[in-house]
This record gives sequence, C-alpha cells and structure tokens, in this order.
Amino acid sequence: MLKITPSVMERVPADTLGGAQAAATALGTIHGVGLGPGAQDLLSVRADRLVRGTRHVAYFRKAGRAGRARRIVEGMLRDDVVEFAMEYPVTTEIPFSDPRYNALLAEFYAACIERLHAIARSGEDVVVLCEGDPFFYGSFMHLYARLQGVVPVRVVPGITGMSGAWTVSGTPITWGDDMLTVLMATLPEEDLARRIRDTDALAVMKVGRNLPKLRRAVAAAGREDEAWLVEYATMPEERVTRLRDASDATPYFSILLIHGQGRRP
Amino acid sequence: MLKITPSVMERVPADTLGGAQAAATALGTIHGVGLGPGAQDLLSVRADRLVRGTRHVAYFRKAGRAGRARRIVEGMLRDDVVEFAMEYPVTTEIPFSDPRYNALLAEFYAACIERLHAIARSGEDVVVLCEGDPFFYGSFMHLYARLQGVVPVRVVPGITGMSGAWTVSGTPITWGDDMLTVLMATLPEEDLARRIRDTDALAVMKVGRNLPKLRRAVAAAGREDEAWLVEYATMPEERVTRLRDASDATPYFSILLIHGQGRRP
Ligand SMILES: C[S@@+](CC[C@H](N)C(=O)[O-])C[C@H]1O[C@@H](n2cnc3c(N)ncnc32)[C@H](O)[C@@H]1O
Ligand SMILES: C[S@@+](CC[C@H](N)C(=O)[O-])C[C@H]1O[C@@H](n2cnc3c(N)ncnc32)[C@H](O)[C@@H]1O
Repeated sequence: MLKITPSVMERVPADTLGGAQAAATALGTIHGVGLGPGAQDLLSVRADRLVRGTRHVAYFRKAGRAGRARRIVEGMLRDDVVEFAMEYPVTTEIPFSDPRYNALLAEFYAACIERLHAIARSGEDVVVLCEGDPFFYGSFMHLYARLQGVVPVRVVPGITGMSGAWTVSGTPITWGDDMLTVLMATLPEEDLARRIRDTDALAVMKVGRNLPKLRRAVAAAGREDEAWLVEYATMPEERVTRLRDASDATPYFSILLIHGQGRRP
Repeated sequence: MLKITPSVMERVPADTLGGAQAAATALGTIHGVGLGPGAQDLLSVRADRLVRGTRHVAYFRKAGRAGRARRIVEGMLRDDVVEFAMEYPVTTEIPFSDPRYNALLAEFYAACIERLHAIARSGEDVVVLCEGDPFFYGSFMHLYARLQGVVPVRVVPGITGMSGAWTVSGTPITWGDDMLTVLMATLPEEDLARRIRDTDALAVMKVGRNLPKLRRAVAAAGREDEAWLVEYATMPEERVTRLRDASDATPYFSILLIHGQGRRP
C-alpha cells in the first residue's frame, strides 16, 4: 500500500527550496500544472507562465490521439520545447477488476517516472500538463505519489472541469447549506442511484459510455427533471443539454449536474 | 420562489453580445469574477485582465473589515478605480432561522443591485470580486439571480478554496472511483456525522466557530485520524494541521479535509 503523507515542499517558498536543492543536487523541479477546464485564458497566471516558459513538457494521452491537455496549450509552447507524450497502455480495453490492469499501469507509470526523473537529474524543470486540477481525479497523482521525496515536485491547482461546467450551465451549483456530491459514472448503478437520491447538488464525471447506466440511476432517484449534461465546458465544442433531451452518446469530457436549491434570501 | 434558468449569455461570444447590447441599450456588463483561493498568481488570465482593466470594482465585506476578496487584488487595480464595498448588514448576529435575517439580506442585495445596475446603465462595466469560484457557495450568486435577464452578466470561474486547500495539504483528494462530499460546517451535528461516515473524500467549509461541533461529528464518524485542517490556503497566513493537533480556534477561512484512498496502481 502506498502511503502518501503531506509534503512540506508546497509550503516552502520557491526560492528557498529551489536554491537549497540546486546547490546540493542540481535537480530540476517537476511541476504538475492544472490547466483548468479548457479555455486558454482560464489557466492561472502561474500556470500560464510555467507553460510558456518551460523547455520540457509532458502530458498523458491515448495512443493515436492529440491529448486533451496538450490541445489546451496549443500555440503557447516555446519553439524549442521538448515534448514527452505519455501514452496509456490501456484505458478501457481491460476492466479495472482485471489484475493485469493494475500491473500494466504500474509498469507504465514507472517508465514515465524514469524519464521525468532523468530530465530532473539533468538539472532541468518539466511541466506536466493536467486537465482541470491535478489533485482532483488527475492522472498526475500517480506520478506525484512516486516522485514525492525523490525530486522536487510542485503542484499548481487549476479550475476544475466541474467549475467550468456549472459556470457555462448558467446556474450556481450550491447555495446556503447545500451539500455537493461528486461521483464517478463508473460506479455501480445502485450506488449511483442511492447517492443521487441523497444529495442537494451533484456533479458526475467520466460520463461518456456510462450515460445509459447513469440515466437509469438518475431516474431511479426520481431526479430526471433536474439533471443537465455539459459536454466540453469552456471548449469550442461546448454543449449544455437537459438530460431528458440528451441522446445516449456523450463524450468522455462530459459532466452531469444537478443544481442545489438551498437558502437564498 | 426565485426560478433560475440557465443563461444563454455565457455561451454567446463576447463580441456578438456586447455589440448588440451596446447598440440597443448602451448597457455595461457586470462580471462576477472568481479570484481563486488567495494567491494573486492563481487568478486566471481572464480574471487578471478584467481586474487590472476595470474602472468599477465591487466586493462584499463585513463592516469595518478590509474584505478578503479586496485584499487578494491589492496592488492590481487601476489608479482611477471606483470602489463599491458592499457591506453585509448581518452575518452572525442574527440566526439564519430568524425571518429578519432573510428580510435584511434581501433588502441589502436589492440596494447592491440598484447601484450596480446604475453603473451598467451608464454604459460602464463592473467587476464583482469573488473569492474562489463565484457559483460555488458565493455571495455573488444572490446578485446574479437578481441581475440575470436585466443587464448583461458574465461569470468567470475560479480555483475553489478547497482546491487550494488540498493542493497545499500535499496530498491528492480523490483517486479512482472515490466519491467526494462537500459540506458546510453550519449543518447540524448529526447530519455532519452521518455524511462524514458515508464518504470516501471530504471537504467541509465555513469551519470557523463551528469547529468544536465539527470535531465531535468527525469523532462520531470514527475518522479523527484522517482529518486535516487547512487555514488560509495559498495566502501568507496559510497553515496545515492534523485535526487532532488543532486547537478549537480556527478562522472563517478554513477547510477540513479527509483525503480519499481509492484505487491507485
Ligand atoms: C480523469 S477526470 C480529470 C478531472 C480533472 N482533473 C478536473 O479537475 O476536472 C476526467 C473527467 O473530467 C471531466 N471534465 C474535465 N474537464 C471537463 C470539461 N471541460 N467539460 C466536461 N467535462 C470535463 C469529465 O467528466 C472527464 O470524464
Ligand atoms: C462563502 S464560502 C465561499 C467559497 C468560495 N466561493 C470558493 O469557491 O471556495 C467561504 C468558505 O470558503 C472556504 N475558503 C475559501 N477560500 C479558502 C482558503 N483559501 N483557505 C481556506 N478556506 C477557504 C472557507 O471554508 C470559507 O468559510
């Protein structure tokens, strides 16, 4: 079992740590940088500077795809940038429950780490591009867990995909004492239904191919009329639909929302 | 009952709408701008531009206080900026349940709206400063609900306080299929305990004076050893403590976290 303990690194002023580490080991820093939901001007000022300034950039993608994170920063990178595309060996071909799934992924992350570590050892920094916020269901966390304590790692939070989604839905997500539940559509139908019944506000991520199941769960919870589907929030292909008007085909980049109705004077 | 329907405004390109509105009515736009958790370079590029460029800025604060949102943008505003401090008439003096609470607040929001509307009618834009993300438990939502359809309103999402909190805690908040529950510490103790028992990951906001009650709820849920308290995330006064090491005094700007332990190859 991997034990993750909070890192002090985040709370040490950049100059102090950078200086000390550089003198002792000449290690570069690995930055996990949240890019936000998709629109380029929704990167934070800190993320924008890191992305534009970096010599080394790394990002996850499916083999043969451009990669969402990479697409968000199109046109922002240095001319002499060195790109490291980390291509997932499996995503949906093998079920999570298959032991080969974990083994393959562990091997993949180890290979990624090796290369990132080599760049850091050469004294250069790397920016790892992360959709939304890196610590919120992000693949970067798997690199972070392995690199922490080995090389300097810094994380830049980002605007989550769900913040992008409720903003473009045009309706606030939570008021007053509303509780918000965030679920993955990969959960079993019964779990989804129970959780959806028992919350004020809701965001469900990783909808994609799970939409038919999710729709049944929303119906079982009696909340069909409150649900909205937001695809590609803040990106050019953005689309906001009532769940009941949506077809059963929705992309991986979609979020189901139920807006809270809490206290509002 | 106020009915909030999704606004198309968000999805109309700025130039189109601005042009049409300007020609017809010469109305300015009211921007609800998310500032993120506190560090100035965690504003989005879009928010940064709006804040630096605006002639009119408005923000909520407690009477006699500087106002957190205003403090975040210290040094970023134009020299000739016109400031509108919206001072809450009540916050904690009257309980939520007292009917005077809602009446006072409704009157207050009406007065704010009147002034913002007047600025918009004069053809000028206003930036309303919002901590974190405006649509996530933000006071701006009360202005938005009243201004929508009356004047052009745009919302810029922001990095939430909770994203800031889990980032500086140095530990990812959700892995794999983890569910995340977001609660207000203002809820009754029994509700808190039940929800805290029944989730993977947790963020509780508005801790402040509710810490003793929240601590009892965490204990009742048997999760004391997993809980962290994060005060003023990404701000100069930032502090991360294990709940069991924290005193009973914590500021309004604090968040309690329990990190998820989900699937990690
Ligand atoms: C692996 S999770 C990564 C979440 C990301 N770290 C974040 O903070 O939003 C991928 C899921 O995020 C959601 N998502 C992220 N950005 C989105 C966007 N702009 N529009 C719709 N869904 C989005 C989708 O549900 C997608 O399946
Ligand atoms: C009225 S809510 C506003 C939330 C805000 N709109 C957001 O997106 O985070 C105020 C609560 O947010 C939390 N909060 C916001 N920023 C924070 C920060 N930087 N550090 C700790 N808590 C924060 C605190 O729990 C506080 O009581």
